[in-house]
Amino acid sequence: DTKVLSANAPLGVGVDQELISAVPSHNPTFVSRNFTDAEIAYCRSQPSPPSSFAARWVGKEAVFKSLGVKSQGAAAAMKEIEILNDDSGVPTVYLHGRAKVQAAEKGISKVLISLSHSETVAIAFAQASS
Amino acid sequence: DTKVLSANAPLGVGVDQELISAVPSHNPTFVSRNFTDAEIAYCRSQPSPPSSFAARWVGKEAVFKSLGVKSQGAAAAMKEIEILNDDSGVPTVYLHGRAKVQAAEKGISKVLISLSHSETVAIAFAQASS
Amino acid sequence: DTKVLSANAPLGVGVDQELISAVPSHNPTFVSRNFTDAEIAYCRSQPSPPSSFAARWVGKEAVFKSLGVKSQGAAAAMKEIEILNDDSGVPTVYLHGRAKVQAAEKGISKVLISLSHSETVAIAFAQASS
Repeated sequence: DTKVLSANAPLGVGVDQELISAVPSHNPTFVSRNFTDAEIAYCRSQPSPPSSFAARWVGKEAVFKSLGVKSQGAAAAMKEIEILNDDSGVPTVYLHGRAKVQAAEKGISKVLISLSHSETVAIAFAQASS
Repeated sequence: DTKVLSANAPLGVGVDQELISAVPSHNPTFVSRNFTDAEIAYCRSQPSPPSSFAARWVGKEAVFKSLGVKSQGAAAAMKEIEILNDDSGVPTVYLHGRAKVQAAEKGISKVLISLSHSETVAIAFAQASS
Repeated sequence: DTKVLSANAPLGVGVDQELISAVPSHNPTFVSRNFTDAEIAYCRSQPSPPSSFAARWVGKEAVFKSLGVKSQGAAAAMKEIEILNDDSGVPTVYLHGRAKVQAAEKGISKVLISLSHSETVAIAFAQASS
């Protein structure tokens, strides 16, 4: 049984939202467990670090959903989903470790992400494709 | 006049949100008119049935928008858009009846969906493609 | 160095949200600077013009993000991103001026958009592809 995955097939989408106040970005353990050094440096350099951490947090959740893998709850390694801005300021997804392996197994070669935060709410959308 | 639709062409997107308190999931007529038996069983098994009904409700609205068909308002048969979780817990769209026919007429062969709810708000995103 | 972009490649996504009350649609300068005549006529014909202006405003922001170009802040010509409903009521994106040029340079040939507003919040999602 052969399965041919054409290029650019949409394979998953993910949306997530959270109250900024509900993301414990003031907790060093939460931050170091879930964000890479580059993400932490970026978020701390922004006008409102709590908003930036919250936006990246929902971004990671949205990417995770777009991968379509079974949730491991608190055990999910959100640090394996890294979101860094490119030269144009566009948030870009880098997968590491098991997240990278799981994406490859599903034929996912690209995950696009967009982030937004208002005064109180952070929201993210992710799209995974072959 | 021949129109060739290549595979994986993005044909529509849909976003919808609603206050969970604004979705009348306590109303048996609303529930039985808009949700399939399998959806009802799933939502009632969840920790917060009102949140789950609301998330599926906005999911149906988002799928409907992604199909790009004219709205029939209250007459739209939201039961024809069924959202059930697959084995990995990923919400998956099944179209029935007129919704299925309309999607086929537009060349839509796949609709991806993601759902999210916070304490108060449910949100969904859908993506339709050939 | 030749780059071949296949059709239907997903090139960017964009999400944006705003409190409806935070979009100054009562300000004629804001409106005339950011909306085309056709958009203004449409929004003013709707049951709640502030909600419609806010939805289109976040729609423009979401499209802008999906193009993946560097933000020019207040100088960004949001009027160059026009969102008009088609015959089925589906919001459709038309790019003009520099936005059109920048999209073409990135190989973007299509931008899909969906808009939603609750009582208080407007949200939009955009998807750009080749």
